[in-house]
Amino acid sequence: MAESTTKLKLELVTKNIRPFPDFPSEGILFSDISPILKNPRALTAVIDLFEDHVRMTYPQVELMVGLDARGFLFGPLLAQRLGVGFALIRKKGKLPGPTVSVSYTLEYGKAEAEIQEDAVSAGQKVLLIDDLLATGGTLYAACELMKKQKADVLGCLVVIELKDLNGVEKLKPFPLFSLVQY
Amino acid sequence: MAESTTKLKLELVTKNIRPFPDFPSEGILFSDISPILKNPRALTAVIDLFEDHVRMTYPQVELMVGLDARGFLFGPLLAQRLGVGFALIRKKGKLPGPTVSVSYTLEYGKAEAEIQEDAVSAGQKVLLIDDLLATGGTLYAACELMKKQKADVLGCLVVIELKDLNGVEKLKPFPLFSLVQY
Repeated sequence: MAESTTKLKLELVTKNIRPFPDFPSEGILFSDISPILKNPRALTAVIDLFEDHVRMTYPQVELMVGLDARGFLFGPLLAQRLGVGFALIRKKGKLPGPTVSVSYTLEYGKAEAEIQEDAVSAGQKVLLIDDLLATGGTLYAACELMKKQKADVLGCLVVIELKDLNGVEKLKPFPLFSLVQY
Repeated sequence: MAESTTKLKLELVTKNIRPFPDFPSEGILFSDISPILKNPRALTAVIDLFEDHVRMTYPQVELMVGLDARGFLFGPLLAQRLGVGFALIRKKGKLPGPTVSVSYTLEYGKAEAEIQEDAVSAGQKVLLIDDLLATGGTLYAACELMKKQKADVLGCLVVIELKDLNGVEKLKPFPLFSLVQY
């Protein structure tokens, strides 16, 4: 993609993110991605930018894995563009059949992430996707799940990265790619 | 779409749905759509079939509205195909800013559905989308939310309809379109 096009697309994405202070609890600055979804051009731009990065950096990707629930908004779109499948990581108790789970600490609370045992196979080259990286707790748990299943995590993709919380350190050695940084 | 193509696509979709008896609780037959997501051709088929139906039946649609969390898997894909935006209905407490909510009874429990006040506008022509219609409680609540916001609900789309539970009656007067019926 030409650099000027990339810049215009990033501007369109950034313009469609709304900050909400003190949500869901005091001291948390919530980045609302609803305007991106509402604007078909902005959503196309998000997927274009992700696709461009993945085709250049991870052409060997075999599966996209998305996090409940906002990772579901972008993951299947990107997976379809790349011609690969999509697997779901959900909060505990949502997925039927044999599952594998890990517990983790959230920016605001505790949770347990789960995947179906047959969702990924050993050695499969996967990319994780979510809307936002804060402290990195959720995405790190997702990487742990992938490791349990012996999948090969190429990296993590997010629309928004909250730089101050330094989630990128927590994710190491897994590389992060974000479209917008605050 | 030619009838034979439609038939082949429906077969591909149906083959990629897994039944799990007694999940999440006894007596419930859970229809797992994970295999559809995992198979890029099956996911394309789902969106093709929805797109075909919407272009013939609701060419005037202005917005897709999807239900947390599995409606998020299909809604943005269909919205992008149609060139319209996508709005999120979520469980209570997940959306920032001014919201509108309704409570409803689920197949297995109780819940409250919420939308941001500015997600839809009065008179806007919307289609609702979710993965599955059981008793219709969730989709009916979504229709109620749309009515509160004075949006014009054209209809509801689901991948799977559980005929025995007669959710289609509950949804009336809003028409339902389902790809697979059990």
